[in-house]
Amino acid sequence: MSDSQDRAPSQEDAWLDRVLERIRAGHPDGVRVGPGHDCAAVDVDGGSVVVTTDVLVDGVHFRLDAMEPATVARKALAVNLSDLAAAAAVPIGFVVGGVLPAPADPALFEAISLGFAEAAEALACPCLGGDTNVAEGPLVLAVTALGAPGPMGVLSRKGAEPGMVLSLTGPVGGSIHGRHLTFTPRVAEAQALARHGVPRAMMDVSDGLALDLSRLCRASGVGVRVDADRIPIHPDVDATGDARLAHALGDGEDFELLVAHEPLDAETTNALAAEGVTLVPIGTFQAPEAGLVLVGPDGEQPLRPTGFDHLG
Amino acid sequence: MSDSQDRAPSQEDAWLDRVLERIRAGHPDGVRVGPGHDCAAVDVDGGSVVVTTDVLVDGVHFRLDAMEPATVARKALAVNLSDLAAAAAVPIGFVVGGVLPAPADPALFEAISLGFAEAAEALACPCLGGDTNVAEGPLVLAVTALGAPGPMGVLSRKGAEPGMVLSLTGPVGGSIHGRHLTFTPRVAEAQALARHGVPRAMMDVSDGLALDLSRLCRASGVGVRVDADRIPIHPDVDATGDARLAHALGDGEDFELLVAHEPLDAETTNALAAEGVTLVPIGTFQAPEAGLVLVGPDGEQPLRPTGFDHLG
Repeated sequence: MSDSQDRAPSQEDAWLDRVLERIRAGHPDGVRVGPGHDCAAVDVDGGSVVVTTDVLVDGVHFRLDAMEPATVARKALAVNLSDLAAAAAVPIGFVVGGVLPAPADPALFEAISLGFAEAAEALACPCLGGDTNVAEGPLVLAVTALGAPGPMGVLSRKGAEPGMVLSLTGPVGGSIHGRHLTFTPRVAEAQALARHGVPRAMMDVSDGLALDLSRLCRASGVGVRVDADRIPIHPDVDATGDARLAHALGDGEDFELLVAHEPLDAETTNALAAEGVTLVPIGTFQAPEAGLVLVGPDGEQPLRPTGFDHLG
Repeated sequence: MSDSQDRAPSQEDAWLDRVLERIRAGHPDGVRVGPGHDCAAVDVDGGSVVVTTDVLVDGVHFRLDAMEPATVARKALAVNLSDLAAAAAVPIGFVVGGVLPAPADPALFEAISLGFAEAAEALACPCLGGDTNVAEGPLVLAVTALGAPGPMGVLSRKGAEPGMVLSLTGPVGGSIHGRHLTFTPRVAEAQALARHGVPRAMMDVSDGLALDLSRLCRASGVGVRVDADRIPIHPDVDATGDARLAHALGDGEDFELLVAHEPLDAETTNALAAEGVTLVPIGTFQAPEAGLVLVGPDGEQPLRPTGFDHLG
């Protein structure tokens, strides 16, 4: 879900601010995590369930004329599992609401459905059902994924505190060259981190490192200092010079996790490494007055929340 | 959800048949009810959660140029709660995936969001979050609702047996004159029925009594004899003669419940009446060989599955 808050609101965030208060006013006690995070969590039947929803639209998030329907279906599931990963939740199933472009094409329906079935197996999250419609317009795939809370409960964007380390689970930038379709959501990594008691706040990088980090800071009520030299830039970034950093900060659809955590001891670092999980520290959370600062070779500058604004 | 099966498959159902087997093959044990019913149910965190999704599209399910955005939002939530009612589940929250027509209109976003907030309170189901996008195309609202299993567990379309009574919770037909926007999902009625141990199978009438009944019969593996004279025809039906029955059978969007149950004793009937719940018996389930039969003043005829085919 992209309901979100940030320090310098994007168009999307500014709109949401106006309605979130009203929506939250209707929440009973059973709502443990609500709008404004990657997932929500609500009490059910003696436990809790984690839920998230993300909508993909042809021409915005994918191009049906340039890729296989199965690839699109996989991405629609994977972006939701990335949100569950941000909550350190274990995926338990998903539903799909689809709008097919008119006139209805049985071959497209079948290719997408079988694509979801394949993705469900590959990503270990069963398809529980769906609803299909036909209308004049682009293909729309609205996936909602459910998860069970992990060993640390439901992580959210709230929980980062001054002095904590900001880390990434992997390199960012350049996903448009293909990785935005083929990425593996960091579900296993999030589970490993939670088993070792590491994350205090998490968020996945979907709209861009800078924009999403600004949202995490706003939700947690903290500032941050990011060390530009430590940001892991993905080899997919094909720019040179300063443009490389700009891609890493603003491209988005990396689907790595932003993790707020206490400094790791060697034992935890080694245990995580043994499970194939590496945290790359890129900054330190600060008191809110410090704002969002990027520390580069030329000194400090404000970290502008560049990235993808869904409503911009 | 409208994944479904029926005796003489609609276009939608025929498509689904081809992919459901593949999708079900990927299901682990924790999936208690899967595609092909109004809701799915899956194990989570020591209990179970019930989930359903329904997508509404401008020009198909509503006309944004002819009604208030808040009315549209209420319907988008209510149709999902009707599916939860069919499972006798207790609503616990919902998420919304929305696609707004480009260019983005803040007033529309706000009106829909506040409409969902109002509907959440009126229908006692909190809004847990959402995802909003903008694209060239009609307004799309994809709602996914979560519920907790009721006192009889998760009811589905399966469970009707020969000899059981087929009842409706209220009159059908003519919803297009306004009721399709303002109906109250039969959540309270379903809970009352479940508390008294009545329903063996349930389904809500969304696509039309005849079409939806054919799906319930197919899922349960039974036939049915429906007494035309006993079908409660809603006063909203403005036709005369035989056309009245055709409207009752085929109009759809009634959102009353089809209930399969053993004959009620007087004590149960009175207890339900005291809670404001009336079941109107309209037929009897039969062995599958009997097929679907409508018994009218002129004798018997096959009950054709008339109604709304989403992919037709």
